[in-house]
Amino acid sequence: MRHPLDCFVNPTSAAVIGASTVPHKTGGRRWRSMVEAGFPGALYPIHPSAPEVLGRKAYRSLREVPDAVDLAVVLVRPDLVPGVIAECAELRVPGVVVITAGFGETGPAGKALEREMVGRLRASGGRMIGPNCAGLFSASGRVNSLGWQPPPGPIALISQSGNMALTFAQFAREKGLGFSKLITVGNAADIRIPEYVEYLFGDSETSVIVAYLEGFEPSEGRELFTLLRTHPAPKPLIVLKPGETESGRAAALSHTGAMAGRHRVVEAALRQAGALQVRDSEDAWDAAIALALLPPLRPGGVVVISDGGGHATIVCDAAERAGLDLPPLAAPTRDTLEKILPARSAVGNPVDFAGLAEEEPEVIARVLDLCLADPAIGGAILAGHFGGYFKITTEELGRRELAAAAQVAGVVKRHDKPVILHSIYGGEALPALDACRRAGIPVYRSLEASARAMAARWRVDGVRPRRSPTGPGLAVDAGRVADVLGRATGTDRRLLLEPDARELLILYGVAVPPSRVASTPEEAAAAVRELGAPVALKLVSPDIVHRTELGGVLLDVAGPDAARDGHAELVRRARVATSGRVRVLVTPMIRGGIETVVGAFRDPQFGPLVMVGLGGIFVEAIDDVVFRVAPVDRAEARAMVGELRSRRILQGLRGRPAADLDALGDVIARVSALVADRPEVAEVDLNPVLALERGAAVADARILLL
Amino acid sequence: MRHPLDCFVNPTSAAVIGASTVPHKTGGRRWRSMVEAGFPGALYPIHPSAPEVLGRKAYRSLREVPDAVDLAVVLVRPDLVPGVIAECAELRVPGVVVITAGFGETGPAGKALEREMVGRLRASGGRMIGPNCAGLFSASGRVNSLGWQPPPGPIALISQSGNMALTFAQFAREKGLGFSKLITVGNAADIRIPEYVEYLFGDSETSVIVAYLEGFEPSEGRELFTLLRTHPAPKPLIVLKPGETESGRAAALSHTGAMAGRHRVVEAALRQAGALQVRDSEDAWDAAIALALLPPLRPGGVVVISDGGGHATIVCDAAERAGLDLPPLAAPTRDTLEKILPARSAVGNPVDFAGLAEEEPEVIARVLDLCLADPAIGGAILAGHFGGYFKITTEELGRRELAAAAQVAGVVKRHDKPVILHSIYGGEALPALDACRRAGIPVYRSLEASARAMAARWRVDGVRPRRSPTGPGLAVDAGRVADVLGRATGTDRRLLLEPDARELLILYGVAVPPSRVASTPEEAAAAVRELGAPVALKLVSPDIVHRTELGGVLLDVAGPDAARDGHAELVRRARVATSGRVRVLVTPMIRGGIETVVGAFRDPQFGPLVMVGLGGIFVEAIDDVVFRVAPVDRAEARAMVGELRSRRILQGLRGRPAADLDALGDVIARVSALVADRPEVAEVDLNPVLALERGAAVADARILLL
Repeated sequence: MRHPLDCFVNPTSAAVIGASTVPHKTGGRRWRSMVEAGFPGALYPIHPSAPEVLGRKAYRSLREVPDAVDLAVVLVRPDLVPGVIAECAELRVPGVVVITAGFGETGPAGKALEREMVGRLRASGGRMIGPNCAGLFSASGRVNSLGWQPPPGPIALISQSGNMALTFAQFAREKGLGFSKLITVGNAADIRIPEYVEYLFGDSETSVIVAYLEGFEPSEGRELFTLLRTHPAPKPLIVLKPGETESGRAAALSHTGAMAGRHRVVEAALRQAGALQVRDSEDAWDAAIALALLPPLRPGGVVVISDGGGHATIVCDAAERAGLDLPPLAAPTRDTLEKILPARSAVGNPVDFAGLAEEEPEVIARVLDLCLADPAIGGAILAGHFGGYFKITTEELGRRELAAAAQVAGVVKRHDKPVILHSIYGGEALPALDACRRAGIPVYRSLEASARAMAARWRVDGVRPRRSPTGPGLAVDAGRVADVLGRATGTDRRLLLEPDARELLILYGVAVPPSRVASTPEEAAAAVRELGAPVALKLVSPDIVHRTELGGVLLDVAGPDAARDGHAELVRRARVATSGRVRVLVTPMIRGGIETVVGAFRDPQFGPLVMVGLGGIFVEAIDDVVFRVAPVDRAEARAMVGELRSRRILQGLRGRPAADLDALGDVIARVSALVADRPEVAEVDLNPVLALERGAAVADARILLL
Repeated sequence: MRHPLDCFVNPTSAAVIGASTVPHKTGGRRWRSMVEAGFPGALYPIHPSAPEVLGRKAYRSLREVPDAVDLAVVLVRPDLVPGVIAECAELRVPGVVVITAGFGETGPAGKALEREMVGRLRASGGRMIGPNCAGLFSASGRVNSLGWQPPPGPIALISQSGNMALTFAQFAREKGLGFSKLITVGNAADIRIPEYVEYLFGDSETSVIVAYLEGFEPSEGRELFTLLRTHPAPKPLIVLKPGETESGRAAALSHTGAMAGRHRVVEAALRQAGALQVRDSEDAWDAAIALALLPPLRPGGVVVISDGGGHATIVCDAAERAGLDLPPLAAPTRDTLEKILPARSAVGNPVDFAGLAEEEPEVIARVLDLCLADPAIGGAILAGHFGGYFKITTEELGRRELAAAAQVAGVVKRHDKPVILHSIYGGEALPALDACRRAGIPVYRSLEASARAMAARWRVDGVRPRRSPTGPGLAVDAGRVADVLGRATGTDRRLLLEPDARELLILYGVAVPPSRVASTPEEAAAAVRELGAPVALKLVSPDIVHRTELGGVLLDVAGPDAARDGHAELVRRARVATSGRVRVLVTPMIRGGIETVVGAFRDPQFGPLVMVGLGGIFVEAIDDVVFRVAPVDRAEARAMVGELRSRRILQGLRGRPAADLDALGDVIARVSALVADRPEVAEVDLNPVLALERGAAVADARILLL
């Protein structure tokens, strides 16, 4: 069956509604780019009056076109768009690209109109890109409604901004690798990011995807997450997502109306899904080139080989900052290098030609060959001014550089390990550099970008998305869970009373200490005899929301008599707030342990998330929490704890015993399963969860339902 | 009087010792570059046998040169260098550049030889650049011993790496602004970084200095710090300093043998001195261009004006990340913009042409004019694809773009506020962009780099170095201080006993609670009666270093009787370790407050530093400390506290009272004065200092002397 997006990128025929006879107007430019792309199928300009547009017979409307139209590109005035859409629906056009702006981005009325148009099209089996987009380019389909010519290549771009598409196209021109598909999504009224990504995973001419995303619509983040985690053959996805800062977010909102999302949630979710996030636009393209051209990083680390110490220092620094490992070369490799290189050369890692390569460029391939043969080495960065040595010496050296490039290419091919070439002349078209480019070796002009690009390869290889998002695999008594959830009180934010919250957690196997609910002072005393002193006493009443402010918690209650008195005291205090029935939760005090917080909530874009942080005032001060899309298994929950900046506290600082991280991970995983399983759970807040030397204990539980 | 470095950059005559008749050899290239630089004075090639070198009469040695030589460039084999240096000394050559390698970087013997050569030269009034350097270029002196041609301009470069000099020269070619001076310092055996910087502060053709520094020699950091803080007319100094990570540091060490330094100390000290530190090499040159071309940022924030929302989003995001303020435009400005721009345009800040400028480039100067006239706005970033609009429209538009560039240049000149132009075509030589460049408007091809460059201007303007490093201005009884310091015990690390440490702190006015030293149990009881209970009791003995391990501290001692027993108990415990006289320090327990740590130490490169952090296990876990070169005044000490990540704890989190930050700042400032005043103080460790609601209290003091 034909994929619903295929009509956009490989259409059999296309019409441009609003094609203009004036070449520099948008309707003229886009018509021209369609023609110049060499589209092989029938191409129809639609114009209200002209008999032809730039040499092709024009039609006054889509209805007049003699054959079926597979793709319609719409450029007419905003007020004319709904009529055109109706026509497309009537004629069952499967793909409609609406470039015209003035819809969802203008406000609720525009949004409603947009929805109506999409509904109309979809009812007739059609799909829409846009409105308010800048068109699309498809190398395989020879389609180009952008109005300008992007260079072709193996990289697919999905962009929420037309200008950013133009920016990436300029990077492509400067850096020499271009587009398989270039799709500007505009308001994305119909087709959303995950659908594009899924299509591109199956597109044979695409080897890596770059996405410029300002935000996600509700649930769109979750869909993308699930796609990346479950697709059988995903490709590297590089995401440039601004909006981290206040004004970036404000600019993004005014731009497409997309929800910019809480940046930390988005970042955590995309990382968990295996997407590569970059900070600078140029990094996105540099990473795309590396991922398109380089084989996967082999086991082992990276060697840095440079013309001199300064370059080596900068690249090593950037490589380590980007997370790459730079292991020392094996002793035999070092011994051989010492024989080849001058005494002043470094031969550990980095390796440094100390000026020799400028006189004898033949040495480069020899050194690279030796390094790549070293079992500790999985890839290499060559840094310096190769390709332009001749500029400071002689033309004759230029010829030797060209020959050296061929030798380097041979070595790279033989070892099949990723090799990146940095040259300060990387922005120029020099013969030796061009030879490397032709051999598929990525060439960068920035020292630091070379290291970051290699790190991109390493990250994508190392952080393969798990096959499916799995929880800890629990068998939960669904009937009893439904029963507990049914007891929630309140109307707006439905709160479970603490005994019910504890019961729900216990049903999910969460480490909750035993407790009793005492209706009378005598029952409280009996509970202490059963559970052992000291205990905590906590008011339980559907009428009391802010228990602490009422003094509704008594800690360190020493024994049955004190519990009896405590019960009476709490009930007295509760009378201030309620005339209803009041009960008291009795639970043993937990000694020792480190306070942590485990929580869960629903993000509008990514759905259920689970969170862990350290408790107490210090950690609130530094805002040290880690998020994951739920559910997570125990291993991933443990990994969350390992990402806390303050993790050393849990690992046994200053000779203190380490906390039981498996038990804490178990709490996180089970809470994640609860929030993922039960769509009615809005929020879980376990604060504190005491991470003990053995085990963990939830000391307070608050669960809100939707 | 002639500055000692003037002979290097403005010599009256020069000799190249080791000039070669083979043009592509290093001695040939460098001789050629000297000749081609158009050096106006007499220029002598020194060659052992050739009658002339590339057309100029050669001499067999310096002695044979008929006139006095001002600058000697030495390129001969390493073993011949000492003889040449002896000759230079004998002939009283004031400036010697040694390019030959094989000295200090090879080990202790090379280092000793290097020192000997420097000594010889200096005895005869000469100075040395190098050895192991790549030469230098001076635009004013028309000197170039690099062997390649750097473009001229207003930027001075000091580089510890020859290859990095080549890298910056390539940036200069690509970005269109070059060098006033380019000095590669090599092993810097004689002239060190501060001396170069000081010379360049006075060099009229230099407007900004870029330094590539891998490390500082002992005390060099302090000299640079002091120069930057006290020079009457400093210029912006941009520092690229790698070596933050392990392998970067290893590479740097193997490269020049310079001490890479603890990165955090270096970073704190350079920031305090007002230097601009950058992370990526390209950022250094981008910042230099901005600082060379732009007027200071006026009061107010920055406006971002862009072709479309995507560019606006990215630039705003990067600008905020870099610390720039993006205030909303004033209402009248917005109103006028709304009349000029299409309805779909954003007009707050960012301002967005929404495609209009591509059709009517005349709008750019109008919008820029309006924005720069807004009192909230101190500078502007224009982002988009200006200069290349014609590429996607018509050649005719190119002519209008060129005219628009002239209008923009006029507006920029009239307002005299910094304006940066980003264009995705910034890497190309397009007519409109060239016109902007000629008008002195910096043009960048990276969105994010534009924002960072503007931030560089803002940082340099905002963080002017203070005129001098001042402490809190204390009148201290020097005699009593010397007396206390004389009591230090031990030989290797001379430790002050805690009563002496407390006395020293009190002499500096540090908030130390009262204490008594009790020789007998009765004296301890009496001290409690005097000071009030509860107290802490601490063993005091010159023989006991690890007091805590012996159980040598008793806390919360309730009254005189308990103190009497405690004294006896401590003395009993002390017998394990010592047979000497043992005393006990009695001091009141301090209730409440937040544990902080105040410390001071001597850094080999930057001298005395002071430090503050939060105490306790949490803060140790996240390593949250702030450093400054000492002394600091109270305002700067307060600023240190404000830079702690966990500062919210001190500011009164969760309704707790805020700590007395003035009192804490006072402790920091006084400790900084102590370590700055007294060179014999190696280390001060006050842990904890309790930051109270009113005041501060040093609860434990440890002071080590050199």
